[in-house]
This record gives sequence, C-alpha cells and structure tokens, in this order.
Amino acid sequence: MVLGGLFEANGYHSSAWLLPGAQDKAPTDVDYFRRIIQIAEAGLLDFFFLADTPAARTENLDAWTRGPLYMNMLEPITLLSALAGTTAHIGLGATASTSFYEPFNVARLFASLDHISHGRAAWNVVTSANDFAARNFGLDRLPPHDRRYARAREFLHVVRGLWDTWEDDAFIYDKANARMFEPSKFHVLDHQGEFFKVHGALNMARPPQGSPVIFQAGASETGKAFAAETAEVVFGTGATMEEALAFYRDLKGRMPAYNRHPDALKILSGVSIVVGDSEAHAREKWASWQDKVHIDIGLLYLKTDLETDLSDLPLDEPVPPHRVPATSNHHQVYFQEIAGLIHQGLTLREVCRRYNRSKAIFFGDAAQVADQMQAWVEAGACDGFMIAFPVLPDSLVEFTTQVVPELQRRGLFRTAYQGTTLRDNLGLRRPASRHAR
Amino acid sequence: MVLGGLFEANGYHSSAWLLPGAQDKAPTDVDYFRRIIQIAEAGLLDFFFLADTPAARTENLDAWTRGPLYMNMLEPITLLSALAGTTAHIGLGATASTSFYEPFNVARLFASLDHISHGRAAWNVVTSANDFAARNFGLDRLPPHDRRYARAREFLHVVRGLWDTWEDDAFIYDKANARMFEPSKFHVLDHQGEFFKVHGALNMARPPQGSPVIFQAGASETGKAFAAETAEVVFGTGATMEEALAFYRDLKGRMPAYNRHPDALKILSGVSIVVGDSEAHAREKWASWQDKVHIDIGLLYLKTDLETDLSDLPLDEPVPPHRVPATSNHHQVYFQEIAGLIHQGLTLREVCRRYNRSKAIFFGDAAQVADQMQAWVEAGACDGFMIAFPVLPDSLVEFTTQVVPELQRRGLFRTAYQGTTLRDNLGLRRPASRHAR
Ligand SMILES: Cc1cc2nc3c(=O)[nH]c(=O)nc-3n(C[C@H](O)[C@H](O)[C@H](O)COP(=O)(O)O)c2cc1C
Ligand SMILES: Cc1cc2nc3c(=O)[nH]c(=O)nc-3n(C[C@H](O)[C@H](O)[C@H](O)COP(=O)(O)O)c2cc1C
Repeated sequence: MVLGGLFEANGYHSSAWLLPGAQDKAPTDVDYFRRIIQIAEAGLLDFFFLADTPAARTENLDAWTRGPLYMNMLEPITLLSALAGTTAHIGLGATASTSFYEPFNVARLFASLDHISHGRAAWNVVTSANDFAARNFGLDRLPPHDRRYARAREFLHVVRGLWDTWEDDAFIYDKANARMFEPSKFHVLDHQGEFFKVHGALNMARPPQGSPVIFQAGASETGKAFAAETAEVVFGTGATMEEALAFYRDLKGRMPAYNRHPDALKILSGVSIVVGDSEAHAREKWASWQDKVHIDIGLLYLKTDLETDLSDLPLDEPVPPHRVPATSNHHQVYFQEIAGLIHQGLTLREVCRRYNRSKAIFFGDAAQVADQMQAWVEAGACDGFMIAFPVLPDSLVEFTTQVVPELQRRGLFRTAYQGTTLRDNLGLRRPASRHAR
Repeated sequence: MVLGGLFEANGYHSSAWLLPGAQDKAPTDVDYFRRIIQIAEAGLLDFFFLADTPAARTENLDAWTRGPLYMNMLEPITLLSALAGTTAHIGLGATASTSFYEPFNVARLFASLDHISHGRAAWNVVTSANDFAARNFGLDRLPPHDRRYARAREFLHVVRGLWDTWEDDAFIYDKANARMFEPSKFHVLDHQGEFFKVHGALNMARPPQGSPVIFQAGASETGKAFAAETAEVVFGTGATMEEALAFYRDLKGRMPAYNRHPDALKILSGVSIVVGDSEAHAREKWASWQDKVHIDIGLLYLKTDLETDLSDLPLDEPVPPHRVPATSNHHQVYFQEIAGLIHQGLTLREVCRRYNRSKAIFFGDAAQVADQMQAWVEAGACDGFMIAFPVLPDSLVEFTTQVVPELQRRGLFRTAYQGTTLRDNLGLRRPASRHAR
C-alpha cells in the first residue's frame, strides 16, 4: 500500500491554525517543516507532498483572513530542496503549473531537486484552477480547460525531452584524456509545437530517477486521458468506496490504449484520517474542528469551487438548485460534489459543513482506520492513499504511531524503506533514456 | 572589506577539474557543495555566489568536453535552498535571468529562499548573454542589449512590487478573533507596462530582508545606469587597479542622479587569488594550470566572448586586428579585453593564455595578497572583492586559513559574523515597505 502525505502548514483542516497547539508562523517556518517531515519519514511514508497555486487571493480578504488558503506559504520547490537535507528516504513531491512556467525552468528545477535529494523528486503536473494565478502572469482569466490541457501535454513532452539531454553514462570524467563527457551521448532537443519552440539542451546530468516521478490529479475527461497517457501517480477522487472504485477502473482501463501496463500508474485515494480512542471520539474531534470554521470561509470555498456566489442566500434554508451553474472551468469534481449536496436539498450551512473537496474521511481507532484502508485497497478502489492530515503535528503523529504499526502487523505496509529512490519505493520502473542504445 | 566567493564546482579555472585532487561528479553533488560552503562560512565570507546561464552549449561539443562551462550544474536556487540548512550566517546569492523567467516566479523563488535562510538571499539580476539560452525559450537569438535591459528594469520593478504585497506586520495570528492577517496591510500590485501586466499579489509574507539583496554585474553604459539606479552589490570589472578605480568613480558618481547615497551600493572587484609560499610559487601554480588548458577551450572562450570564430588562424602569429567585430551584443567588457589583447599584437595562443574575463589576479604569499587587497580598497578602487577561487577546495582553504587571518590582523576584515542577515553583514539598509505608514 502506497501512503503519501498532503501537507499544509498547520494541517489541512481550515481551522487547524486556530487550535491552541497550532504553531504561529508555521507557513514560512522551514524549521517547523523539518520537524514535520522527520515525523513523516519516521512513519515510513512514501512521500511528502506540497500542493501549490501561484497566487494570493485578491478579493474577499475579510473572509480569507479566517482560513487563509494559500495566502502565505513558502514556494514548494525551494522548501523541498531545503528539506532534502534533513531526510534520506522519503519522497519529495511538489506542484508546478504548466500554465505559468516555462518548460526549461521546470525541467531544471525538478531535475536539480532530484539530484539534490539523490532520487526522491516528484512533480505534480497541474494546469491551475483559479483566475488569481492567471492575473499574476498577464492574463485576465485562465485559458479554457481544454487549452490548458493541450499546453500541459506539450509542456510535459518538452520537459521529458530535456531530461533526456544526457544519457545516463554521458559524464565520464576522463582526466587523462581531458574529456569530461562523451559528446555522442549528448542530445539536443529540437521541438516545435503549438505552444513551445525549444531548440536546446539541459545543462545537467540526467536525473538520478531518469525522470522525477510524474504526479497528476486531473479528474475531468481530459484530465483522465492525460493521466492514462503520462502519469505515474494519480490522486484519485471519490468520497465513497464506490466512487473510488469507478474512478480506478475508469482510469486504469484507459491505459492499454496508450500501451501502458496498469501497474505503471498508482492511484491514491485522497482521504482525511481522524484517529481517536473510538469512532465516536474521532467524530467528535472532527465536529469540534468543523465548529470552528467561520461561515464566511465555508461560503468562500463554495464560491471558489462552485464558481458562483451563494452568500446572498439564507443560511438555514435549502439552496435552490437553479443556482448551480451549467458548467465549470475549474475543478470539475469539486463542482459536482457541491452540486450533488445542493440537489440533496441541504441547507446552505449544511452544504458548507459537509463539503470536503471530494475526499473520504476515515474515522476510528487505529484498527478501524486500518480496516477501512484495507477494505478500499482489497476492493480495488485504490493502490494506496493520499492522506490530508487535518491538524499538524497531531494527526500525523497519531497516524504514524498508531495506524502505521497496525498496517505493518497486517502485512499491508513496509517496515523499513527498501529502495534508495522514490521510484524504487513506489515500485515504478526507472525509464530508459529515449536515446539509450 | 566585503568578501564574496564565486563558486564553480571544481573551481573557476577551466582546468581545475583535471587536477588529481578534483572530485569527480562535483557539479551535481550537493554533499560536495556542503563541504565547500562550510569552509567558506568558517572563513567568514560575506556570501557564497553561483553564476548561471539557463542552457547547455549545443555546438563545438568536442571542445566543450575539455572544459565544460555550464554543461553540467545544479540549478542555483534549489542548490542554495539545500545549502541554507547546513549554514547559519553566510549569504546565498544566485543569478536568475530576467530574459527567461516570469517576474512572479522569480519573486517567489527568492522570497522563499530568503525565508528559508532567515534573511540571507541575494539575486543577481542579469539579462543573459548567449543565444543558447534564447533557443531554450522559443527565440532564435537574444533580444538586442537595450531591449533586454528595458525588460530587466521593468522586471525588477514588478518583483519589488510583489515583495511588498504584505507589510512586515501583516500576519498577526490572532486566534481569539480568527484573523490570521490584517487585510489593510495587504496590497495588490496593479502593474501594466511595456513587457508585463501583473494584477496580483505574492502569496508569502514579506521577505525577512524586506528585499533579498540585489546584485548586478552590468558593465555597459546601460548596465551601469541600471546598477546606479537599482543595484546594492555590483561585481565591478577591471583587470588593473586603474580600470577598477575608473569603474568605481563612474558608477558611484551616477548614483546621486537617482537620489541614492553611494554607500547604498557596494562595488566588489572580480579577482582570482593564487596563494603560494612566495609570489614566484603562486605564479608557478597558475602557470601549471594554464598549461593544462586545451587550446580548443581557449579558442572557444574567445569565440564566445569576442562573438567571432578565430580558429582558422595560425596559433603562433599575431591576430589581424580587422578580425575584431565592430560591435558586441553579449558581454561588452569581455569583448573589449580580448580586442585590447589583439591590438597589442599578441599571437592567438598568447591571447588565449592571457585572457581572464576581466578579472585581476593577485599572486603571492598571504601578506602579499593582503597587501594588494588593502591597496585596492584604500585607493578607492572597490569596497571589497568577488573572489573566483581557481581550484576547489584548495584555493578556498588557502585563502580562508592564510589570507583571512592576515586581513583580520590588519583590522580589515571581521573576526566574527555580526549581523543576522546578509544585509546586516554587508552594511546595507533594510528597505521599508513602500506601503508602510
Ligand atoms: C490531492 C490533490 C492535490 C491537488 N493539488 C493541486 C495543486 O497543488 N494545484 C492545483 O492547481 N491543483 C491541484 N489539484 C487539482 C487537480 O490538479 C485538478 O485540477 C483537479 O482535480 C480538477 O481536475 P481537472 O483538471 O481534470 O478538471 C489537486 C487535486 C487533488 C485531488
Ligand atoms: C562576477 C560576475 C558574475 C556574473 N555572473 C553572471 C551570470 O551568472 N550570468 C550571466 O548571464 N551573466 C553574468 N555576468 C555578466 C553580467 O551580468 C553582464 O552581462 C556582463 O558583465 C556584461 O555587461 P552588460 O550586460 O552591461 O553588457 C557576470 C559578470 C561578473 C563580472
């Protein structure tokens, strides 16, 4: 079972920063992140992952100050580079947007992280999903969904081409003959496509993993097609086992069309995990966190993800279904989850409270949580989990000291890191250079 | 006296990697760089600097394999992020090109490095000077020199605007009232210029230094005007004290026109330092390194920096002056140095051997090297030095264990780090936010 962790400074719950134990200034405190990742590595997690969006929100500030999503954070690639030195085994994954970077710069940053971490880098290829980001890069709004994916596909193709500039054994350091590299093992990329023209070469030896591991989280039709063709780890969606199962079958079923074996892609279900002395205790903890979420923040998440503002509506009456927009341009799965809650006839307040960005929540003591994880994997709903730890460091400590040992006892999770690279640990093949003979 | 170090994996001399003590694979070995920076910090250097160009050479590979300039290197910002954790005082400077990055991404990467290092980041603002880089970013060649500087000026203006998104005390972490930040201390940048349109905000608290320190190395008229207006550290050019003096007076003399006090800018002369038991011994060492430089590499440097190919000419005859091009688009000072050597009537081989990219070379035992450094600073030729260490780790060890103590005895250099940030150590003021009241 693959276990990745999705980390936000004080935790993924939007009221985590309000709890008495929450550390002030955590979002920009590298020493705090060092402590967190060391706990994650002691728990043998496959990887430590940082989501990203290249923008602060510039509207609704009085609401965002109550649960400041992405308003203050370190840049993920620099943070992971810093964390590489305090860890030795855990994978290091970060998001970088294909809509707002140049392929050469992304190729270099992740190749460098892969060298710096001795083969532990992963890149989450996203197309971004908010207009605040677009405005930082000269646009008024995001390009349409399909155009973003067309660019992403070409972007990844160029990046992979650049990573293959040098064959694995191109650098020979032959001092006697004053030859540092073998020129025949150097390959210039000559790419001319719809979005990019790159005639050049990466100035760095091939990454230790050949290619940093490619993560994706697309859930739309286009996103799934792109993942089936190119991704190696996908953060699956589905708040129930049935939804996750359907997603899993759908995505893996698309792979043969791209000549890929289903094992070449690991699907991890996004899940929040709340460990307590009992299921009731765990649910009480979650409810106490939910109670602290300011209604303004709940409304803002809805506004962001439903792409429409519902704040004029009364809180304790059902949301009129005609207020759901006809189509979405951002996160389609989030959009559908909210639409579904509205169509159930819930009040606005209840929609806010229930909405969890299409992640399941596993409540219980260690054995109960392990039961649910085991059930999902055995049913074929996922290859593992992408765990959003609600409150840090507590949720992480509870998980690694209680649930991980339980999974180990059941033979479902490693008892030591086996491989030396993230690929090894995930059971993914190291890609051969396209130029290797 | 300010002392910065310019680091290349095995050293700045192009035959450093051929020496018996040179470590293989140094260019991509973060642990090697950790050892080097710790020596530099033990020697109390102000900063550790990494030059950069975003491209490998794609031509003349048989020559580049003999002295592979920028063919294999870690990306500097990720490398410095990794090195931040193994050091506590030394400044961390890297180049990033305004021609091939987006302002938002640069603002973020350096602000993040500044947080990660607790206030030790510096950005060397360059416009790039080779067409290999241009071809990685969709262009056939570099834009003209003046256009590059026009973009650089606007780029820096945008980056500084983004660093001022949040006032210093904007993040308050008021848990009782559920307010993480003070919305009135958040400022959206609304920029519309010739090159960039940015309506947005940085998603990170203001950098600890207010602004990472701004480095520059422009030597052309446009470059000096830009530096006089905006730079805080400039790598001066001048292979002799007279040239350095002229550069110093020229640049500092331009500052009042921009309402800047000359002390707000430190000019560091680029210099190679070779310490021996005696001056003769030091010169012998240098000569032995020069002897190892393959003639193909010498010719390539000339081709790159003179922007014309001289390899058809006989090696042991004077270079005909009509072979010097009329104008240059890349490094103008390098161009002029080579032109000067040719106009002296030197043979092609001698031009190759003498050319040192407009850096002085200080030869001698520790006292003699210190004498020269003292003389330059006391004459007003510079505020300190940007030292290109020819051979690593040897040249650095010799300098820090022999020359630094000599400078300390003379009261010319610190005996301990005093400040907590790079700005403090350089004696540069922390800029107030443009929005502070
Ligand atoms: C666990 C997880 C992490 C994600 N991280 C990011 C992220 O860091 N940045 C981002 O823009 N989108 C992120 N997404 C969103 C996806 O990249 C994707 O845009 C979204 O699932 C919508 O799918 P679609 O692009 O196919 O419409 C994440 C999604 C999941 C499930
Ligand atoms: C010590 C030093 C370091 C430099 N580092 C870089 C660098 O990393 N990348 C780069 O493109 N240029 C670098 N340069 C070149 C300058 O940025 C500048 O382009 C050059 O001095 C020519 O001046 P001009 O741009 O005014 O014509 C460096 C110059 C010096 C003296």
